[in-house]
Amino acid sequence: MHFTSEQRLDDDVLERAFTLGDIPGLLWTPAAAPASAPVPLILLGHPPLGLRTMYPRLAARARQAVADGFAAATIELPGSGDRPRWAAAEQARADLREALRAGGPVSEEIVDALVLPLVDKAVPEWRTALDAFLALPGICGPVGYSGGVISIGVRLAAVEPRITAAALFAGSFVPRAVFEEGRRVTIPLHVLLQWDDESNSRQAALDLFDAFGSKEKTLHANMGGHTGVPQYAGDAAAQFFTRHLK
Amino acid sequence: MHFTSEQRLDDDVLERAFTLGDIPGLLWTPAAAPASAPVPLILLGHPPLGLRTMYPRLAARARQAVADGFAAATIELPGSGDRPRWAAAEQARADLREALRAGGPVSEEIVDALVLPLVDKAVPEWRTALDAFLALPGICGPVGYSGGVISIGVRLAAVEPRITAAALFAGSFVPRAVFEEGRRVTIPLHVLLQWDDESNSRQAALDLFDAFGSKEKTLHANMGGHTGVPQYAGDAAAQFFTRHLK
Repeated sequence: MHFTSEQRLDDDVLERAFTLGDIPGLLWTPAAAPASAPVPLILLGHPPLGLRTMYPRLAARARQAVADGFAAATIELPGSGDRPRWAAAEQARADLREALRAGGPVSEEIVDALVLPLVDKAVPEWRTALDAFLALPGICGPVGYSGGVISIGVRLAAVEPRITAAALFAGSFVPRAVFEEGRRVTIPLHVLLQWDDESNSRQAALDLFDAFGSKEKTLHANMGGHTGVPQYAGDAAAQFFTRHLK
Repeated sequence: MHFTSEQRLDDDVLERAFTLGDIPGLLWTPAAAPASAPVPLILLGHPPLGLRTMYPRLAARARQAVADGFAAATIELPGSGDRPRWAAAEQARADLREALRAGGPVSEEIVDALVLPLVDKAVPEWRTALDAFLALPGICGPVGYSGGVISIGVRLAAVEPRITAAALFAGSFVPRAVFEEGRRVTIPLHVLLQWDDESNSRQAALDLFDAFGSKEKTLHANMGGHTGVPQYAGDAAAQFFTRHLK
């Protein structure tokens, strides 16, 4: 892990850009934290739109996490930002756009082609990044995962034992195979669903919530469309992490 | 309104029993509140099991409400506790028990017979009680409704303009007619659903949530069965009232 730049946000938060091999990322830690008092970590998931596009929303979530006593970190997803595209993903995105333009349902084949390779590539990268984050002074477990892509969060929750709580954003297409992975998830889950999300299947989100094997799972459904998550819903997710990671 | 007894809970809460005509009820107010600083009111809904049976849970909810800076009040439902039964309700309960024993679905006719007369009788009583509560020194609007029977809460939210926010417990059968009333509800709603409620239709709860006309509506689904609402879910409902009634 190689730090490439740093800046302060609001005096309280140290934001550092890094590269991990060829993967860029961002790390936020309490500016005043002594290495002797390490803080738990929240991994900030996000849609594959590139860190530059997502930066304002990620920085806001990171500020909240640090204010609540956590470190926060994220990495660029494979095929996003300046990272190399791969042909099959470009084709899947084109097929999705075409299906949406035609106004028809999006087929399982398109959803699988769109999401499964991304999950297969992203999850090992998140795990490698987690090794690096936890090797830094000032950061300790337990670790939470927060946000989308929900299929990435589900796979991580199922396979990565250092992640002990997850707040998942049910705002993207879910391949059938991910419902099976969901049954194997047993950590506490907090699932956020925008009830009137124009670009998401509400029924798929409810079915996935039902499938989760966790004894403690909570669904928070709100109005406001895909990007209109209310402030109080963000606050509730923050309270979830405070309950489980502190 | 005639107060019949009073006691202190934890030094901080004044609990008074009253009768309003032939309807018994309970009122909880801050023990130290001066009449010059009136507090908003939360009406505590409950299932038709009688105030004596429900007392421990009602008192716990009332303590929370008073700790948050509210008054709380409840009344005995028609046909519950020591209030006179009516034959049709007894018949509907017998029909429900028989349908559940037979393991079959509960027909719309049974649900209508069970719930609609209760709503028709209870809602005017709640409104009369509200007149009396708001005439007391130390209590002011706005008013919230909290809990079940959800069909009573929906009717009240639709017709009673002094109720400006409602936290509804989706834990009882819902007649078809109530979905139509739900469309006319426009106040902020916080709906609590026990996802694994063994005695409730999850799909009916989701359909009713979808029907509500409110621009701000939130669904919180949790595990734990009908009576196992987690503490943090109660805390979230309390935060909802603090956001809307203060």
